[in-house]
Amino acid sequence: MSVIDYQKIFHHIVAGFKDDDDCGKVATYIPELANVDPKKLGIHLTTVENNHFCFGDSNEKFSIQSISKVLSLTLALKVVGEEVWDRVGVEPSGSAFNSLVQLEYEKGIPRNPMINAGAIVICDFLLSCLDNPKYELLEFIRKISGIASIDYSVKVAESEVQTGFRNYSLANLMKGFGNIDNDIEAVMDLYFHLCSIEMSCKELAQAFLFLAADGINPIINETVISPGRTKRVNAIMQMCGFYDEAGEFAFRVGLPGKSGVGGGIVAVHPGKYCIAVWSPKLNKNGNSYRGMRVLEELTTKTQLSIF
Amino acid sequence: MSVIDYQKIFHHIVAGFKDDDDCGKVATYIPELANVDPKKLGIHLTTVENNHFCFGDSNEKFSIQSISKVLSLTLALKVVGEEVWDRVGVEPSGSAFNSLVQLEYEKGIPRNPMINAGAIVICDFLLSCLDNPKYELLEFIRKISGIASIDYSVKVAESEVQTGFRNYSLANLMKGFGNIDNDIEAVMDLYFHLCSIEMSCKELAQAFLFLAADGINPIINETVISPGRTKRVNAIMQMCGFYDEAGEFAFRVGLPGKSGVGGGIVAVHPGKYCIAVWSPKLNKNGNSYRGMRVLEELTTKTQLSIF
Amino acid sequence: MSVIDYQKIFHHIVAGFKDDDDCGKVATYIPELANVDPKKLGIHLTTVENNHFCFGDSNEKFSIQSISKVLSLTLALKVVGEEVWDRVGVEPSGSAFNSLVQLEYEKGIPRNPMINAGAIVICDFLLSCLDNPKYELLEFIRKISGIASIDYSVKVAESEVQTGFRNYSLANLMKGFGNIDNDIEAVMDLYFHLCSIEMSCKELAQAFLFLAADGINPIINETVISPGRTKRVNAIMQMCGFYDEAGEFAFRVGLPGKSGVGGGIVAVHPGKYCIAVWSPKLNKNGNSYRGMRVLEELTTKTQLSIF
Amino acid sequence: MSVIDYQKIFHHIVAGFKDDDDCGKVATYIPELANVDPKKLGIHLTTVENNHFCFGDSNEKFSIQSISKVLSLTLALKVVGEEVWDRVGVEPSGSAFNSLVQLEYEKGIPRNPMINAGAIVICDFLLSCLDNPKYELLEFIRKISGIASIDYSVKVAESEVQTGFRNYSLANLMKGFGNIDNDIEAVMDLYFHLCSIEMSCKELAQAFLFLAADGINPIINETVISPGRTKRVNAIMQMCGFYDEAGEFAFRVGLPGKSGVGGGIVAVHPGKYCIAVWSPKLNKNGNSYRGMRVLEELTTKTQLSIF
Repeated sequence: MSVIDYQKIFHHIVAGFKDDDDCGKVATYIPELANVDPKKLGIHLTTVENNHFCFGDSNEKFSIQSISKVLSLTLALKVVGEEVWDRVGVEPSGSAFNSLVQLEYEKGIPRNPMINAGAIVICDFLLSCLDNPKYELLEFIRKISGIASIDYSVKVAESEVQTGFRNYSLANLMKGFGNIDNDIEAVMDLYFHLCSIEMSCKELAQAFLFLAADGINPIINETVISPGRTKRVNAIMQMCGFYDEAGEFAFRVGLPGKSGVGGGIVAVHPGKYCIAVWSPKLNKNGNSYRGMRVLEELTTKTQLSIF
Repeated sequence: MSVIDYQKIFHHIVAGFKDDDDCGKVATYIPELANVDPKKLGIHLTTVENNHFCFGDSNEKFSIQSISKVLSLTLALKVVGEEVWDRVGVEPSGSAFNSLVQLEYEKGIPRNPMINAGAIVICDFLLSCLDNPKYELLEFIRKISGIASIDYSVKVAESEVQTGFRNYSLANLMKGFGNIDNDIEAVMDLYFHLCSIEMSCKELAQAFLFLAADGINPIINETVISPGRTKRVNAIMQMCGFYDEAGEFAFRVGLPGKSGVGGGIVAVHPGKYCIAVWSPKLNKNGNSYRGMRVLEELTTKTQLSIF
Repeated sequence: MSVIDYQKIFHHIVAGFKDDDDCGKVATYIPELANVDPKKLGIHLTTVENNHFCFGDSNEKFSIQSISKVLSLTLALKVVGEEVWDRVGVEPSGSAFNSLVQLEYEKGIPRNPMINAGAIVICDFLLSCLDNPKYELLEFIRKISGIASIDYSVKVAESEVQTGFRNYSLANLMKGFGNIDNDIEAVMDLYFHLCSIEMSCKELAQAFLFLAADGINPIINETVISPGRTKRVNAIMQMCGFYDEAGEFAFRVGLPGKSGVGGGIVAVHPGKYCIAVWSPKLNKNGNSYRGMRVLEELTTKTQLSIF
Repeated sequence: MSVIDYQKIFHHIVAGFKDDDDCGKVATYIPELANVDPKKLGIHLTTVENNHFCFGDSNEKFSIQSISKVLSLTLALKVVGEEVWDRVGVEPSGSAFNSLVQLEYEKGIPRNPMINAGAIVICDFLLSCLDNPKYELLEFIRKISGIASIDYSVKVAESEVQTGFRNYSLANLMKGFGNIDNDIEAVMDLYFHLCSIEMSCKELAQAFLFLAADGINPIINETVISPGRTKRVNAIMQMCGFYDEAGEFAFRVGLPGKSGVGGGIVAVHPGKYCIAVWSPKLNKNGNSYRGMRVLEELTTKTQLSIF
């Protein structure tokens, strides 16, 4: 079925890029992100039939940052179940990704697990349910992707601690509302490690492929979650994966996806493929400028989206 | 292809309803809505191959209210084009459907064309571009659906005027920000007529079928908008069609859709079908309680959604 | 007692002004304000012993705008009584003077009668209680000041109507919440007339003198309101008279007062005097730049404030 | 001059209290406050001529909580000077005393030094300027009051740490905005100690008497701050001393004052007296229910307020 030559499409898209039209700015709040070469561009698409199409720096590892929030949610759904929805919502946030305003009006219940506050609650769940959450989270990601080399970046995790005042503020606010059970430092340690995971585009496309295949990673035949939960994770990515640009991404690209401030984006076409793009310069909403363009042109040229 | 027996599924779903579990409340702000029989239940599904499946009061006309916002947007995209996005966004609102708060923070630019403020701006566009907007809007809807009997309810439109203070407030606020060009009364007259359109489930399923078929109504072979714009309208419905319950609808149902306070919901499965459900009791977010349940069970039982 | 030579102080203060240090901008939203000579400067202080001290353009009439909100409140306290506090608060607004945000969160109850929304509710009260509110309001102001020539500016009132979309928005929002009883147009007609009153600094100092004298205008021996209510009106001016600069005014000047976008400020030293200043250029918060400076230096040089 | 028999007035006021009309609730967030006898009632008024009038439990020490924010501000004005206003405002907050919403919109600059966030910034200033801030703050309070026995409650300070998640949230948010220089833990340690100070009504009236006497404590003839700064501290108390009930306090009482969740209130009549009242039950805004009643009736019966 996968007769589309995605490789060719990638070349066409990138050929249309000009040197001076990458308008974004690299994230600078920690040195590990600030020092990345802004010209990096990697693309990797894996189909559910295990066909691969790639471009550029697709084998280079980078900081996946918030993209990992999809994986922590997936693990929480496995070990906690539907109870997670008692303490975190499924609605788009409609404002900046780390806004305290909404969290205060809504009494410490984060809008969804894709924003920082929501992912912190998910980490709190994992801490309550797992013996060694930092280790088990990593093992889970290695297992569902079949890639044993995936790891945290200790340096990134440490930098996050030192600049993460706003995240501490979110965690303390939620604790004040009774929506964090564990010790703040333990929760934040897990959260900052979650943010620090490093993967390449190829690895990301493989790790998230289960979302395109009813919950089973078809490459390694590993069942991750049920088809029903898979649909729900996709729905949440669609509604909440791009902070206050979720509507723009649905409008322009039309696929469920999740971005990170490291410049990575993962997108899923259920039943068809998973794609990861990496380009470090971010637009004003914190999403990869060229990453969004690649995906927009991909769904435009192929005329295929979920809508 | 349409071998699924939706008719049987509808009967199964409704058989599971109990008399006392319709928890919502009928809208009461105007007598025309308050006086509707709360026990009404209509379902009509039309496939792109022109197969029909229905249940209950599917041929009874009701006030489609905000569902019509999809039709006014579609017409505006035809006559105005992409310029509409200069004055209205594509992001979910993340708060009550008629909130002034967000509108004030965002300087009079409504979040999207599915909330009242956004639809008022769309009406302002139509007033600027059309000679006889009230007449031409109706003719457009009749043409794309192939149903000549679709009409406004003058009584509903008049009731809306008398209770629509908040909508006047929105319009005046936007005019203060320079985002309404025409006279407030003229804009509101068109807006309140738009809200007053009456259709049956069967008519709705037929009128919105173009959104499941790349922009062409396959029943009457009428081209409405381009495939690209069709995808975008679907994306906007997905992200913004259910006020501050858009995430919940994506999570539970997984289809683009639009609800109205008359108790109607239209949902679209691109490439497959359009379905309209009507049940007047609304949940606390203003969406049909049983309408959402019917759609949730439909996509659960068929295991088919866009995700 | 009034041995202080205020006249001399005024000359000292104004002598310290330089041509290029009047940093503000004249209000421009209606032509009647935009066309005022920005260099105008009038000061008039009247003591409770009927001593007068003046400077510059103190006999020239100007648009007192929001300063009149104190007079409409005073009249409402007379004809309605303490019931007014059921529908308007006494708390500082803490945000822009015409903000809809707070009004929406607080269900249509304005924070205080000194902001636009609050004054609109006061006008609604007057409409419900008076036979000919526009005429009776004017007669009341003439009576308590002893100045028969005080009048509305029909031109200003008409201009306000044409640009007052945000005020219409406030009124409609409150009507939606059930906090406006009368027809919107009638309420706004009274409100816009209230804003259009024209007085000179001398007239203002005389009209507001009752607030410095326990509720009695000592010049004409006219009892306006009780001592208890006088204190309360002063307290409200102190807390709410300068929009989101009320704290700054208390901090720098230390007297109850009220400003208007026409560049006027009235301030009261209970037991001592009433002063009116007029200088059309406004600071970024909409209060007269030089007016605030005159008053700050007055209380600094005399070392007399209520604190 | 002080011929008013305040003692007799106090007895009259309290005689009017009925057993069942103390509608408030004792603060319960830490055991040290929850366990206080809710029936306690103390009043102490000290005139600038060193006359004393008291009632009930006026010699019993209690947790003065936020009342101490006036003292930390006074010390900061002495050691830092007017620079404090670069990092904290003078405007009323217009919303809950520990709201993060306003702090986020205003980029980490607290509205005033009387709310928690503002007092935390003041503590940060003191940490930067003093060698041993915890010790020096206490010595300052002892010195200006002439009462060597004033002290922190270590137990209260420790309890505050364990429940102060929202205050940690505020501090981290401000640190994220760059408005906290020192280590969070050090700032919060000073802040929680500041909250833990214990004093009796008599001691409070004496410690705050300088605010009624142009900056000099007349009992011990100790100059605290200049007359100009005294007026400004009084102005800030007037505008900001009662959280979102500041307007109500001005309206009903008409004196600058500051309350604490321990049930204490200090109020100042410049040139006349300082009064402290203590009654642990708090109204819904967190201010002593009976404390406010005592002060309201005092200024009503004496017909003396600053307005």
